[in-house]
Amino acid sequence: MDLNYTHGLIPVIVQEAETDEVLMLAWANDEALRLTRESGFAHYWSRSRQKIWKKGEESGNLQRVIEIRVDCDADTLLYRVEQRGAACHTGHHSCFYRDIEGRELTARLFDPSEVYANKG
Amino acid sequence: MDLNYTHGLIPVIVQEAETDEVLMLAWANDEALRLTRESGFAHYWSRSRQKIWKKGEESGNLQRVIEIRVDCDADTLLYRVEQRGAACHTGHHSCFYRDIEGRELTARLFDPSEVYANKG
Repeated sequence: MDLNYTHGLIPVIVQEAETDEVLMLAWANDEALRLTRESGFAHYWSRSRQKIWKKGEESGNLQRVIEIRVDCDADTLLYRVEQRGAACHTGHHSCFYRDIEGRELTARLFDPSEVYANKG
Repeated sequence: MDLNYTHGLIPVIVQEAETDEVLMLAWANDEALRLTRESGFAHYWSRSRQKIWKKGEESGNLQRVIEIRVDCDADTLLYRVEQRGAACHTGHHSCFYRDIEGRELTARLFDPSEVYANKG
């Protein structure tokens, strides 16, 4: 179906299919969406690095996409995924590990300095 | 905590607290966030109407905000809510009622023409 991209991008809510936990928000362009649908693994557009990015290509924390849903205005996607390991680069399972006061709600699963090159 | 707004806005993923269903994606500015925290009911920034909007003010389908979470980069919010009635203006409980092929996954709960003035 026709999607409504803004400046070539569409936000993607990523939800763990097994637990229904919301893991992250990312952005896709039409190429990232095509790669996701062809491979079955989530690909996004990195706004900071300005390039396509396969989720987990460095950390191994891949996202297998079980289902793609579209919202009423066709301007947001919902990926329901199988998340290997942690979704968040901080080592937390979900990127939403804090409340609005900054209090941590969940523990880290890994130390980022051991997983990502040139970080930490 | 300090949030990272883009052009004054931050995306808000809205999830039903009881069921963990993802209901919608909306946008907030600092004023909408303040009104949400003060009132306990979700307020957003309407990009199409360029104004603050209290969710459900017309339809009665209010969202009581149980918890606000922040992601790792502090550039996305997650509202966990109690949703009265349907979240979607189409009458579906969630805005994500279709798959990427356009197939409807869930039934409508109401007829929009009976709920919204000047529509339908």
